[in-house]
Amino acid sequence: MKASSSAAPTVLISEVGPRDGLQSVRATMPLAAKCAWIDALAAAGLREIEVGSFVSPKLLPQLADTADVVRHALRHPGLTVMALVPNLQGAQAAAAAGVHKITLPVSASAAHSLANVRRTPQQMLDEVRAVLAWRAEQAPQLAVEVGLSTAFGCTLQGAVPEDEVIALAEALAEAGVDEVGLSDTTGMAHPAQVRRLFTRLRAAIGDKAGAAHLHNTRGLGLANALAAWDVGVRTFDASLAGLGGCPYAPGASGNVVTEDLVFLFEAMGVATGIDLDRLIAARAPLAAGLPGEPLYGMLAEAGVPRGFVPATRIPA
Amino acid sequence: MKASSSAAPTVLISEVGPRDGLQSVRATMPLAAKCAWIDALAAAGLREIEVGSFVSPKLLPQLADTADVVRHALRHPGLTVMALVPNLQGAQAAAAAGVHKITLPVSASAAHSLANVRRTPQQMLDEVRAVLAWRAEQAPQLAVEVGLSTAFGCTLQGAVPEDEVIALAEALAEAGVDEVGLSDTTGMAHPAQVRRLFTRLRAAIGDKAGAAHLHNTRGLGLANALAAWDVGVRTFDASLAGLGGCPYAPGASGNVVTEDLVFLFEAMGVATGIDLDRLIAARAPLAAGLPGEPLYGMLAEAGVPRGFVPATRIPA
Repeated sequence: MKASSSAAPTVLISEVGPRDGLQSVRATMPLAAKCAWIDALAAAGLREIEVGSFVSPKLLPQLADTADVVRHALRHPGLTVMALVPNLQGAQAAAAAGVHKITLPVSASAAHSLANVRRTPQQMLDEVRAVLAWRAEQAPQLAVEVGLSTAFGCTLQGAVPEDEVIALAEALAEAGVDEVGLSDTTGMAHPAQVRRLFTRLRAAIGDKAGAAHLHNTRGLGLANALAAWDVGVRTFDASLAGLGGCPYAPGASGNVVTEDLVFLFEAMGVATGIDLDRLIAARAPLAAGLPGEPLYGMLAEAGVPRGFVPATRIPA
Repeated sequence: MKASSSAAPTVLISEVGPRDGLQSVRATMPLAAKCAWIDALAAAGLREIEVGSFVSPKLLPQLADTADVVRHALRHPGLTVMALVPNLQGAQAAAAAGVHKITLPVSASAAHSLANVRRTPQQMLDEVRAVLAWRAEQAPQLAVEVGLSTAFGCTLQGAVPEDEVIALAEALAEAGVDEVGLSDTTGMAHPAQVRRLFTRLRAAIGDKAGAAHLHNTRGLGLANALAAWDVGVRTFDASLAGLGGCPYAPGASGNVVTEDLVFLFEAMGVATGIDLDRLIAARAPLAAGLPGEPLYGMLAEAGVPRGFVPATRIPA
């Protein structure tokens, strides 16, 4: 018989700030600050963190020290250490550094794909197949996830046909990817669409249906998260303090704010395993490592309500 | 046979900024600016606006000119002109000014009720009965709505028993109130609670179940609105640019932002009758009338997505 506290439904919050957030800001956070920030995130109870990218340091100098960040993050037992990789070379570097899981970005929009990685979606699918063939031989323990960018619309191409999104997800699942998630890269998703597309995704690829990566560009981030939860999504990407902003929308936060998302779930009785006060405290090392960068998030401004009863009970 | 455009589901957005927003800011907006702002709101397609309060000008000098604002707002054909009144005297003044509808605030929390109107919930119920008795004799055309404050929790008293909220709603409906809505005065509501309480409200008082008045204090405003929509709520209060803030949470917006809420519904295919570009344009007279006051809202920062297809089609 389980203890009553474990009877609550659970959700996995995957923190992407150290990768998605830091690649979007102009300043480079020093290595020591990145490590202190990741320590604070782990102390708050986060169980999965995307700590960086294995891409050319010429393209993203902010993330050039990712291998060192990975090695530091691996000190936290029970923490899944993730990194983004754009290709086989990146996957090999990530595995050499010791990451548990890699995520490859594949755009559903051809226009976005060419702008982002200078390849068509079909070429990226071939790249993912190359990664999977290498994994089978050399790194069978490495988890491989794909996030389908611009799954809900594209600022370059406009609407993205849902049939194309689902066909791409099916091809990736058949190729052997462990999980395929959907990303609202451009902040264009709405709840009815989120419900429809994640329902179709699960119908198409079953348990390989992965994370919801939602943005709050137009304020709909948490409403979309609720919609995704309603149709069975159980992994959500988020960024502490909404770090990253949105280059084409000054003042608008980009990623869904981790603190607000965790509060949403904890309030609804869904256990995240995360302590809200410690999570808010993890904004301090972020702010210290990126002086002057704006931090977003409503919960941190208003505070946890007095007498709030979270779903996650953490021993003091 | 209806035109295809009218086949979309519809929702009523009730703009409360000129009352709820203006009473929460320190500055007083000049009468001419209030009128220009209301004109812009009506031009955007809003069909119901709470234009002020009939309370003592000593308590709320910002709203001392409400009778003049009402007279101006009545020039807009088809617009429901509302005002908040705390008592019979206010109701009589509102009716004399010509409002179509009054709203009375009744707190579900005794502690909040005493702090806000210096009366217990039971005493406020008696006051509502006095208003209804007067209406029956003197103002049968006047619609009477009650918003149940602190229905989802209270910063003074903590949790508010749901049974007490529903019992109060039943007593008000039996007394003859036309609509009873639920207000998340303190920004403590979450989607599971919103679904549960509005479902209970409709089971208890049927079609007298009224508006959702939601706050965005901790970022859950639109998620809560989605939850309320899911269980049949079809009227939502909101405030342009989230005007009003939240006195105990600096930097945190108070009321749900009208622009973001309208975008949520229009994106989901629910017609509001409101034109998003004209709604965003209505921020200009607000800003002009309250120089220096911070304006909130994500949609206005990011803009309507290129190629966006709203549910409401307004002839150019």
